Amino acid sequence: MAPAEILNGKEISAQIRARLKNQVTQLKEEVPGFIPGLAILQIGNRDDSNLYIKVKLKAAEEIGIKATHIKLPRTTTESEVIKYITSLNEDSTIHGFLVQLPFDSENSINTEEVINAIAPEKDVDGLTSISAGKLARGDLNDCFIPCTPKGCLELIKETDDKTNGRKVVGDVAYDEAKERASFITPVPGGVGPMTVAMLMQSTVESAKRFLEKFKPGKWMIEYNNLNLKTPVPSDIDISRSCKLKPIGKLAREIGLLSEEVELYGETKAKVLLSALERLRHRPDGKYVVVTGITPTPLGEGKSTTTIGLVQALGAHLYQNVFACVRQPSQGPTFGIKGGAAGGGYSQVIPMEEFNLHLTGDIHAITAANNLVAAAIDARIFHELTQTDKALFNRLVPSVNGVRKFSDIQIRRLKRLGIEKTDPTTLTDEEINRFARLDIDPETITWQRVLDTNDRFLRKITIGQAPTEKGHTRTAQFDISVASEIMAVLALTTSLEDMRERLGKMVVASSKKGEPVSAEDLGVSGALTVLMKDAIKPNLMQTLEGTPVFVHAGPFANIAHGNSSILADRIALKLVGPEGFVVTEAGFGADIGMEKFFNIKCRYSGLRPHVVVLVATVRALKMHGGGPTVTAGLPLPKAYIEENLELVEKGFSNLKKQIENARMFGIPVVVAVNAFKTDTEAELDLISRLSREHGAFDAVKCTHWAEGGKGALALAQAVQRAAQAPSSFQLLYDLKLPVEDKIRIIAQKIYGADDIELLPEAQHKAEVYTKQGFGNLPICMAKTHLSLSHNPEQKGVPTGFVLPIRDIRASVGAGFLYPLVGTMSTMPGLPTRPCFYDIDLDPETEQVNGLF
Amino acid sequence: MAPAEILNGKEISAQIRARLKNQVTQLKEEVPGFIPGLAILQIGNRDDSNLYIKVKLKAAEEIGIKATHIKLPRTTTESEVIKYITSLNEDSTIHGFLVQLPFDSENSINTEEVINAIAPEKDVDGLTSISAGKLARGDLNDCFIPCTPKGCLELIKETDDKTNGRKVVGDVAYDEAKERASFITPVPGGVGPMTVAMLMQSTVESAKRFLEKFKPGKWMIEYNNLNLKTPVPSDIDISRSCKLKPIGKLAREIGLLSEEVELYGETKAKVLLSALERLRHRPDGKYVVVTGITPTPLGEGKSTTTIGLVQALGAHLYQNVFACVRQPSQGPTFGIKGGAAGGGYSQVIPMEEFNLHLTGDIHAITAANNLVAAAIDARIFHELTQTDKALFNRLVPSVNGVRKFSDIQIRRLKRLGIEKTDPTTLTDEEINRFARLDIDPETITWQRVLDTNDRFLRKITIGQAPTEKGHTRTAQFDISVASEIMAVLALTTSLEDMRERLGKMVVASSKKGEPVSAEDLGVSGALTVLMKDAIKPNLMQTLEGTPVFVHAGPFANIAHGNSSILADRIALKLVGPEGFVVTEAGFGADIGMEKFFNIKCRYSGLRPHVVVLVATVRALKMHGGGPTVTAGLPLPKAYIEENLELVEKGFSNLKKQIENARMFGIPVVVAVNAFKTDTEAELDLISRLSREHGAFDAVKCTHWAEGGKGALALAQAVQRAAQAPSSFQLLYDLKLPVEDKIRIIAQKIYGADDIELLPEAQHKAEVYTKQGFGNLPICMAKTHLSLSHNPEQKGVPTGFVLPIRDIRASVGAGFLYPLVGTMSTMPGLPTRPCFYDIDLDPETEQVNGLF
Repeated sequence: MAPAEILNGKEISAQIRARLKNQVTQLKEEVPGFIPGLAILQIGNRDDSNLYIKVKLKAAEEIGIKATHIKLPRTTTESEVIKYITSLNEDSTIHGFLVQLPFDSENSINTEEVINAIAPEKDVDGLTSISAGKLARGDLNDCFIPCTPKGCLELIKETDDKTNGRKVVGDVAYDEAKERASFITPVPGGVGPMTVAMLMQSTVESAKRFLEKFKPGKWMIEYNNLNLKTPVPSDIDISRSCKLKPIGKLAREIGLLSEEVELYGETKAKVLLSALERLRHRPDGKYVVVTGITPTPLGEGKSTTTIGLVQALGAHLYQNVFACVRQPSQGPTFGIKGGAAGGGYSQVIPMEEFNLHLTGDIHAITAANNLVAAAIDARIFHELTQTDKALFNRLVPSVNGVRKFSDIQIRRLKRLGIEKTDPTTLTDEEINRFARLDIDPETITWQRVLDTNDRFLRKITIGQAPTEKGHTRTAQFDISVASEIMAVLALTTSLEDMRERLGKMVVASSKKGEPVSAEDLGVSGALTVLMKDAIKPNLMQTLEGTPVFVHAGPFANIAHGNSSILADRIALKLVGPEGFVVTEAGFGADIGMEKFFNIKCRYSGLRPHVVVLVATVRALKMHGGGPTVTAGLPLPKAYIEENLELVEKGFSNLKKQIENARMFGIPVVVAVNAFKTDTEAELDLISRLSREHGAFDAVKCTHWAEGGKGALALAQAVQRAAQAPSSFQLLYDLKLPVEDKIRIIAQKIYGADDIELLPEAQHKAEVYTKQGFGNLPICMAKTHLSLSHNPEQKGVPTGFVLPIRDIRASVGAGFLYPLVGTMSTMPGLPTRPCFYDIDLDPETEQVNGLF
Repeated sequence: MAPAEILNGKEISAQIRARLKNQVTQLKEEVPGFIPGLAILQIGNRDDSNLYIKVKLKAAEEIGIKATHIKLPRTTTESEVIKYITSLNEDSTIHGFLVQLPFDSENSINTEEVINAIAPEKDVDGLTSISAGKLARGDLNDCFIPCTPKGCLELIKETDDKTNGRKVVGDVAYDEAKERASFITPVPGGVGPMTVAMLMQSTVESAKRFLEKFKPGKWMIEYNNLNLKTPVPSDIDISRSCKLKPIGKLAREIGLLSEEVELYGETKAKVLLSALERLRHRPDGKYVVVTGITPTPLGEGKSTTTIGLVQALGAHLYQNVFACVRQPSQGPTFGIKGGAAGGGYSQVIPMEEFNLHLTGDIHAITAANNLVAAAIDARIFHELTQTDKALFNRLVPSVNGVRKFSDIQIRRLKRLGIEKTDPTTLTDEEINRFARLDIDPETITWQRVLDTNDRFLRKITIGQAPTEKGHTRTAQFDISVASEIMAVLALTTSLEDMRERLGKMVVASSKKGEPVSAEDLGVSGALTVLMKDAIKPNLMQTLEGTPVFVHAGPFANIAHGNSSILADRIALKLVGPEGFVVTEAGFGADIGMEKFFNIKCRYSGLRPHVVVLVATVRALKMHGGGPTVTAGLPLPKAYIEENLELVEKGFSNLKKQIENARMFGIPVVVAVNAFKTDTEAELDLISRLSREHGAFDAVKCTHWAEGGKGALALAQAVQRAAQAPSSFQLLYDLKLPVEDKIRIIAQKIYGADDIELLPEAQHKAEVYTKQGFGNLPICMAKTHLSLSHNPEQKGVPTGFVLPIRDIRASVGAGFLYPLVGTMSTMPGLPTRPCFYDIDLDPETEQVNGLF
């Protein structure tokens, strides 16, 4: 028998660490930007643990592992610890972590519950029951062995020749390890360093497994196979027949952490803006906007094309892809329009959730909007019925004998140029200026809103109760989506930015002609509080299981008609540089797309890669001189039979819209949305003409009847176009005079000879310029049924002068909106509204009658 | 060596089954109603499995185990299988289950993911990695060994004497088992029956462990220890300093299944009505209502007492306990009142979520209410501008040449006595009756609503736009919580019942004097769809971690001022027969409690056990003749210094309210809500007098400053009172004439000499009786600041005649409401509304300024 010899753990562990260092260097070279990540979650502050944690952190640093030490107080509860563990489980930059619990937690933490919450693939300490089970079953490929016994084994293995036939003992440096490695008799030696080395080895191993499993940035997503039927069933029947993924699962699939997701039941979730912060360094995906030619009153299928396209890119071409769409107003759902979640086999599901309350964003807008309205009239009333002194004393009340300005009041004083913070020092003149907004009722532009089609509220007289002492006023209600707050939601870029925009909203002028803002009313903080959840985009899914953001839905005429910047931004980060985000712009390209570029992209700084322009045989025939198309009436014969001449003549409109898109320097793919009455010759003609007239490509689509499969050619064209060179440019400079900016849009996009500012518009242009709002972009409020201001003029009208009746300002949202003609901002209910067919089955709880 | 002998698995397994049968019989005797439960979840339909499943089901039946066989199609996805597993994990009637996956799933199910989703404590097949890990670690007390190897071991054990020293082999009856039992060489024998017997044994073992762990019906709940500070910090500071349990965890703690819970983020959840269905056979808990004496305008702390009481019963006395409270209107939150989530150390948290949108129920009510309003005016307009024929053709449009009545229209025809279903067969007279509601605009009682304090909408003129062609009308907006739909939500008992109540709501009379309902407008189905989520109660938590339902908040004067019947019912089932549900009734006992009994309990059929009557020194002093108390002004001296005489004099009001409660046959516990300026002598005096005058008990409470600890004496008194005999009785019979019912309330509860119906009230009593609504209960709209109709009359007014100005009907909710004086249904904003202080910190995202 050979003499006793101490196995030198220190030496062997140093060798292992050196080897790991090389491996990590190599990994980093192979996958640039990748760093193996280790986290140590420590609850309580045990002296003995601190030492060992320090050693581990140092070893990790030397090897090139990014190690994070999270320290939580001894008072942390079990739920909180589990929350941290969940977050580490989901953090793709952490490949292994260990949890150090206190001996004497104040909150009786169940050790087993906590340890078993660790994801087995990150359990580099090998402590979970699952790891033990896999070890016991010899299933070693995807589990880890506890570090101390592993160290012993390694020590034995590395010194195999020396130990052959001898009795081996190791040293165990601390009590805790005793239990883990109970089969090793503790005598002096060197297992401590081996434990550390093994932890590092497991972490590097875990990082390697991670890289093998997840192609960087590629989603692991479960798609849903459609079971296509002919004839195509109703939208609600298709929506219902589909298997919904739990929305939390979809969120995990696309790389969201559970702390970034707020579930609203099983089908909807809100995504927190912290996701954007976390992913800020990741490059954006490709940005695709879907727009259309000048439509018939039936619509040409932009939403359906948007959904079909993402279903094709995702479920058929396996790209990371997001659709970003608008939330529809609930008013028309019960009025004349029905749902807006796409249609046929290209839908956002469940369509009834999409079309009803969703997560309450529009309700929040209604509440916020009407708080401003109530504040305006109440303020006018109180100013009219009180002296300066009484007003001031109520606005700055004495609490326990002390008067104090609130923050929002101090900001108002600053705007007034009064640099005082002590209420007792204001002069009478300053008190007057501070306390009186002195709103001129004639200039109030802020209206009340409801998300209901209520035509009797289009013009009303308010304040007729005796309590209001005769201070009546003419006012109106708009539909909620017409609220400036909806436009703010769509254009804001952060919580702070939203707070600022809400404050800047101008509601009226004072009698001296100065703008009065929501901030002056003292209500902007409350508005932000009311909108704090609405700012988070809503996650839903398509029929084929790809993700959709449904967020914001501003009016497409008096506002810019595009979904939110924040949804697009988060989606662009989530899809990553190889992925696609498809967003829809309202109305035709002359309106929605122009505003998408000049307003939305200007504010977001995002640069689009591809324009998808939706066209239909039906609409081209109308532009070619076909008879009038009316919703609710059967289509005239010309639209049902082949007529190549009408199509060719009507192509003029599509040609102009292609030119409009190209004016911004972006490649255009024409999507010819096929209907069953269209002939191949008609569809081919449109594709050929489009390609001849500047389209990057033009393809036939049948996604309504076939889902993503029917938009496969479109998806491939979009992929190619996204690689094509582009040189994005905006149409006008903000510094130009208001009238010039309007003229540029009218001439270049609409093809007008000139514009004419009617007196009211002329006056407003001057007022807003004087008030400092002349530098805002322009949001044209024009009919979408013609390139001109006259909805009857189809094709490409020429030789017209565009009349500008009035100009209004959405200063908070950030645009001026010239009114071309009269815009209805409150729809009505027909004699037989949709609601006649809508009901709930009390047995199945299914919604019937939505379409 | 002994000769070879075959071990007879059949015989031994029969012995084991017989033994298990005895054990189950004994278990059932020990815990009446308890049955061990086994489930077999089978995906796909393998012939070989079917046979073995049959054998297992038969064995279970013989032993007395309730076995359930769930068959899912081969097309089931992984998510769906996991959903079923989760539901079995949570089902407390299932103590073990196994999952049988198909060989060839269509949806590529990950076997390991699925198997490891099984809760280890129910993994009677011993297949999860955790079970394997525990087995490997020798941790056998809370895991299960796979049934076939277990069977072999058992076989060997049972025949130990025979096998001593021999080589043992077993038979394995099917391929699957081969893998599990690989260490056993398969030769003919009897392991098959042993496998089945072991499955039964594990299930019975699991059922026994379940009974040991969970005392039947007793919640395993994590309470939160309060860290009490002096002076008591602001409500929002306390709310924020507290550790919130994830609401999903609380839901599990109180026995809800995850399929019964819809999370709304981490702090709020909706509970599905299916929970009520599941628990329908469980006996109800004790039902406690919190009410108060006639209050000062400052309020005497009913909400705070409600929350303090449940914190005491739960976190200090370890009882199952639920608080059921009302959702506050958002209007006053931004106006003059601030929050309503309790206060101090007795709060529902997070208070900002409680006070803002919550889960959107009130927004849904606003939307539904205003859809009815829009439908009324639009219908009048369309009837005025169209002929009978045109109206009919639009109401019953020709679709592809065919006219068809919708369901709701066929129901209207039936109500009109027209038994036809073919639109072409109606006579001109029938067309006229069907198509014209012929609403008399003067009789419209349906108002529009907003959840905003907007005084300028108290009286308005609508329909002034040119599009409405001069059909103007005087109308008004109420605050949303005054909508009849809110009262319907509070009183409904199921989805079907809600659909019916919403349809029955009367909005006006026809010119012939017939009631016109929401069903006549064709809108009731749509209303139900809008309210389908609002009907689910909202789960939140108290500061000490006990559950709270926040659901419905009808006005306490023109409606009945109590939270929902559905929340109370679900809570009563969840707490179980030994538990407590504490619900709050609005205003003083003469109003909120009277309506709680005569309206809410009448409709729910629930019988209360205890009345808690909240009193304060301050309010008694006021009733005793103290000076006027005004919100916003400092309290006069009499309220700050000891004054036993005022207290004793003012006790008259409390005495009357005790009598009022006892009139219904329920024991009364007086909760004297202590303020820091109260003296012990004053507090003791109230307690003594209360006990002398009929209270079951009377105790001092300090829950505002101390949380549940401060309501411990109250909680103990409530526990005792709940055991006391009671004989609940309603105050009046519904069949009495309307006037008599009003008189009974006025005389018995208010102490009036008589009532006087003014002409309008007289007329309405006749109209409603004629229309068939005379049998409804009465909901008095009276001031809460006095027992009489005059808010200035404190104490116990006598010798007065109660004037009834008018009577209105909420036919859908189900009550008539006599108006005593004028009720404001739309609050206003003061000069300096609360919103001046409300803001969001964009860094921390915390809400500031709510109180």
